[in-house]
Amino acid sequence: MKNLFANRVLNNDNSDLDNIFKNSANPANISFAGGFPDVALFPDTDLKHAYQTAIDQDGPAIFQYSSTQGLPALRQKLAQRMASHAGVMTTADNVMLTQGGQQAIDLVAKLLLNRGDSMVVEGPTYMGALAAFDTYEPTYYEIPVDDHGMNINQLRQTLQAHPEIKLIYTVPDFHNPTGTTLSAKRRQAMVALANQYDVMILEDSPYRDLRYSGKAIPAIKHYDTEGRVIFISSFSKILSPALRTGWIVADDDVMHELIGLKSAIDVQSPNITLAAINAYLDTHDIDDHIATINQAYRIKRDAMLKALDRYMPANVQYTRPAGGFFIWVTLPAGIDAKQLLNDVVLPQAHVAYVPASCQFASRQVKNAFRLNFTSLTPETITTGIKRLGNILQTSTAAVPAKALMPAIQF
Amino acid sequence: MKNLFANRVLNNDNSDLDNIFKNSANPANISFAGGFPDVALFPDTDLKHAYQTAIDQDGPAIFQYSSTQGLPALRQKLAQRMASHAGVMTTADNVMLTQGGQQAIDLVAKLLLNRGDSMVVEGPTYMGALAAFDTYEPTYYEIPVDDHGMNINQLRQTLQAHPEIKLIYTVPDFHNPTGTTLSAKRRQAMVALANQYDVMILEDSPYRDLRYSGKAIPAIKHYDTEGRVIFISSFSKILSPALRTGWIVADDDVMHELIGLKSAIDVQSPNITLAAINAYLDTHDIDDHIATINQAYRIKRDAMLKALDRYMPANVQYTRPAGGFFIWVTLPAGIDAKQLLNDVVLPQAHVAYVPASCQFASRQVKNAFRLNFTSLTPETITTGIKRLGNILQTSTAAVPAKALMPAIQF
Repeated sequence: MKNLFANRVLNNDNSDLDNIFKNSANPANISFAGGFPDVALFPDTDLKHAYQTAIDQDGPAIFQYSSTQGLPALRQKLAQRMASHAGVMTTADNVMLTQGGQQAIDLVAKLLLNRGDSMVVEGPTYMGALAAFDTYEPTYYEIPVDDHGMNINQLRQTLQAHPEIKLIYTVPDFHNPTGTTLSAKRRQAMVALANQYDVMILEDSPYRDLRYSGKAIPAIKHYDTEGRVIFISSFSKILSPALRTGWIVADDDVMHELIGLKSAIDVQSPNITLAAINAYLDTHDIDDHIATINQAYRIKRDAMLKALDRYMPANVQYTRPAGGFFIWVTLPAGIDAKQLLNDVVLPQAHVAYVPASCQFASRQVKNAFRLNFTSLTPETITTGIKRLGNILQTSTAAVPAKALMPAIQF
Repeated sequence: MKNLFANRVLNNDNSDLDNIFKNSANPANISFAGGFPDVALFPDTDLKHAYQTAIDQDGPAIFQYSSTQGLPALRQKLAQRMASHAGVMTTADNVMLTQGGQQAIDLVAKLLLNRGDSMVVEGPTYMGALAAFDTYEPTYYEIPVDDHGMNINQLRQTLQAHPEIKLIYTVPDFHNPTGTTLSAKRRQAMVALANQYDVMILEDSPYRDLRYSGKAIPAIKHYDTEGRVIFISSFSKILSPALRTGWIVADDDVMHELIGLKSAIDVQSPNITLAAINAYLDTHDIDDHIATINQAYRIKRDAMLKALDRYMPANVQYTRPAGGFFIWVTLPAGIDAKQLLNDVVLPQAHVAYVPASCQFASRQVKNAFRLNFTSLTPETITTGIKRLGNILQTSTAAVPAKALMPAIQF
């Protein structure tokens, strides 16, 4: 039947990634590949009670069709949280609940992108976002990321050179995969550029509340003056990914169309889940739960950084994130992290990571990889990084040190 | 920001439908517009226990990321049910769980349709499917429906005349909106035509188990010899729509791509919900529950048919469905059911229905409407149809009787 498939599918090949995750699921390996929260931190008993409470409170009506935009009481709570935790003044009418942050990305892509339309992504960027965007067949422009997030000078040059660009996609807080955070000054500059060049910004911030050191920075949407910023986040990292519940904050015109698109995609999110989350928030301070998570993740991050400091060869560089899930490791130029993974790291060190190439829209950068530190214990992290460091001592011995971030090829 | 929206959004206008559902939510009106199950028939206590059981059994792991294809135990049960209830021999590997039947439609559209690609729909058809397909900007060919489902002679002529057609979308069982069922002979003929003209068939069958009289017919996929039929169904009508859980049955190549697309759309369906449905099925015979539903819906259908027989003018025709949710009413040619609704039926009779135009891809047929009988009591149905009949006696008095199904304009 392949002759009947659409181009968006024929152009797509995720077999590399499938193999990585298949190998990383092998219990013989220590996997830093996934982006999983620690299962020990889920408030499972509280959530079980929240489901019961929600069903008891609403009765049979909870099982009926409800609104596409999602439970008003939960949207109201999120609107308040956007003000208190992200500096974004909004209303429940400007919040929509989605199937995780991933559906929010898909919806925004569907709203904006005709085939061939131009957009900006970070290089590297969240590979799940690339998978979503890929199905709309855009033209990508890749902007490098440094310790303060997306390089704004390069963004300016790119917008100037390509006035047809419609969308900037960014993960500003504890960026997936580098862990870096966009500075307040750059957030303001990004909004100014969006205004100047008539571009929308998709601010994807699922890790925002997972800060282990330093002070929070207002969301990009805080600086939005023309309704150009669409903010998305999720309960996946702060409560549970199996809830599949995220949210979008957008101004009226954009929200109206997003509701229409979601209605055509899946009618609405499961009302029972939304009511359970709402019941959980009614009886628990989620910030207490987040503080517990952050304490545990801070210890894991510190364990990974300490092990990297101890075991990595001098010609290997890595980021030092203040929060989130990931550390980004850059190998000397010329080393292909994917080939190294398959030929040496997996078979000999029994360690898995996500190689750079599938995290760049251009697929051109090869000498880097992503490590996750949230899903393993500090002891396993130390063991795995030691194994990885030892094998990299051998594999990278002949190659000199290189700049922190790989150069991007347009 | 409208200048930045994609064509798929700019071409879309659902404001008519929004207004209809807004008016029909007004408690002063009797609404036959929605496609809602009867809230009194939800097994709410059993489902509440199923959530508890699922969370107790799986522990914290139930809250972690899981597979895109969905819980294997539930897919296994559905594979067995496909054999016993639809004559379809399949395996758990060929079943994927989705966010209701609606996401299954969106996924198949995304798999097959490039902008401008040609497809066949019934005229009339499920308006939610049109909303999903519309976002892929296909070229529609509309085939009329009679008492035995899609007209196969017209399908043959259309496929012959337009060899570029890739997809046939059909609701074969208790069709939304007409309530008619595709005969076994036509199912076989449709598969033969798909083989001959290299076309896929999307068999959308959410009402299949809701039969109130007559004998079940095997699914179209039962007759599939070349992996051309993608079967989709849902728990929305037999258990609860708020679970947002449907399923797709497809052969290997198609399934592989659908899993990749779903991963990019929302990663996976909520594992807690899937585990709860699985726990419900472990401890209850869903066929007992379906028998209870069918008994109640049979009474409602009979009440509506009896009231139609009694109160409708002679120049108004309607279908007599053997199951499902809907009856289709055809007015004399020349009457615009939407205009009639807004000008007379809603303001004077305080009754709502869904006018024909938004249920035809062509938007050309106007003299018909859809009635739902599942969500109201027999008494309210009788009252509403009496009011509707009385007002139609006046409104259609001058117009002669017409054939059952409206003629289709290509």
